[in-house]
Amino acid sequence: MEATQIMVKMVFDRWNALMQRCNGILDNLTDEQWQTEIAPGRNRVIYLVGHLIAVHDDMIPLLNFGDKLYPELYEPFLKSPDKGTEIPSPQTLRVYWRKHQETLTQQFERLKPEDWFEKHTAVSSEDFIKEPYRNKLNIIITRTSHLSYHIGQLALIK
Amino acid sequence: MEATQIMVKMVFDRWNALMQRCNGILDNLTDEQWQTEIAPGRNRVIYLVGHLIAVHDDMIPLLNFGDKLYPELYEPFLKSPDKGTEIPSPQTLRVYWRKHQETLTQQFERLKPEDWFEKHTAVSSEDFIKEPYRNKLNIIITRTSHLSYHIGQLALIK
Repeated sequence: MEATQIMVKMVFDRWNALMQRCNGILDNLTDEQWQTEIAPGRNRVIYLVGHLIAVHDDMIPLLNFGDKLYPELYEPFLKSPDKGTEIPSPQTLRVYWRKHQETLTQQFERLKPEDWFEKHTAVSSEDFIKEPYRNKLNIIITRTSHLSYHIGQLALIK
Repeated sequence: MEATQIMVKMVFDRWNALMQRCNGILDNLTDEQWQTEIAPGRNRVIYLVGHLIAVHDDMIPLLNFGDKLYPELYEPFLKSPDKGTEIPSPQTLRVYWRKHQETLTQQFERLKPEDWFEKHTAVSSEDFIKEPYRNKLNIIITRTSHLSYHIGQLALIK
C-alpha cells in the first residue's frame, strides 16, 4: 500500500463512516421529526439536511466533477437562515440526499489516489505551487469535519 | 513540499482550527453556562468538556507520548453518563483543558511528518503490516472528527 493510497483511505474511511451515521439518523426520524428544532430556537432537522446537501453540492464543481445537482438549494440553505424562506418538503429532500450521495460516490470512485493531490478548482495554478495542500483531498477533509459538526446536532433529536 | 508533509499539514490545520474554535466557545461561556444542558435533557457543557479532555488524554498513550495526564477523568467522563457521578469544577476543568492542549501541542511538534505514518500503540506490528492506515495520523483524523461533533453541540449554547 503506497503512502498516497493510505492517506486517501484514512480520509474516506471517515467520510464514509459519517455519511453512514448521518443516513442512520435521518432514516430513523419521521418527516414530523424533521420539522423539529435540534434545540430550542435553533435550526430544524430539515434545514440542516438541506444545508448539508447544499454544501455537498458545492463539492461537485470544486472537485471538477461538473455542475451542481441542486443549485436552487444555495439560496434557502446557504444564504438564508432557517425559516427565512420557502424550502422543499422532507420527502423531496430525502430523495435529493440519497441521489446526491450516490452521485458523489460514483465520482469519487473514478479518481485514483494520486488524483486527490491535484488542485481543486478554487485555487489557481500559481497559488497551488506555493500551497500544495489546497488539493482535492482537502475538500473531503474539511467537508468531513463540517458533516461531523452537524451530525453532533442531529444526534440530539430523540 | 513532500506528500507526507502535505498530508500532515492538512490534518493538523483541521485539528488546530477546531481546537481554536472550541477554546473560543468555552472561553466565552461563564462557569454558570457550563452547567447548562446543550439541549433539554442532554449533556451539560461541563460534561462535554470533561469528555473531550478524557478522549484527548487517551491520545497520549495511543501516540506513545507517555502516560495520561488525568486518568481520573476516565470513569466520570467516559464510563459514566452526565450527572452519573461527582465531577471536577469548571475552574479545574478549564485549567486541565488548557494544560492538556499545551502538552499535546508540545508532543506533536517533536514528531517529523514521516513519524505520523508509524503505527499507534493499539495495533500490533503484524496487523500494521496488513493495515498500514492504523497509524498515528489516523488518531488525529478520528479525534478531529470527534471534536467537531461535540463543537457542533457546544455551539448551541447562547
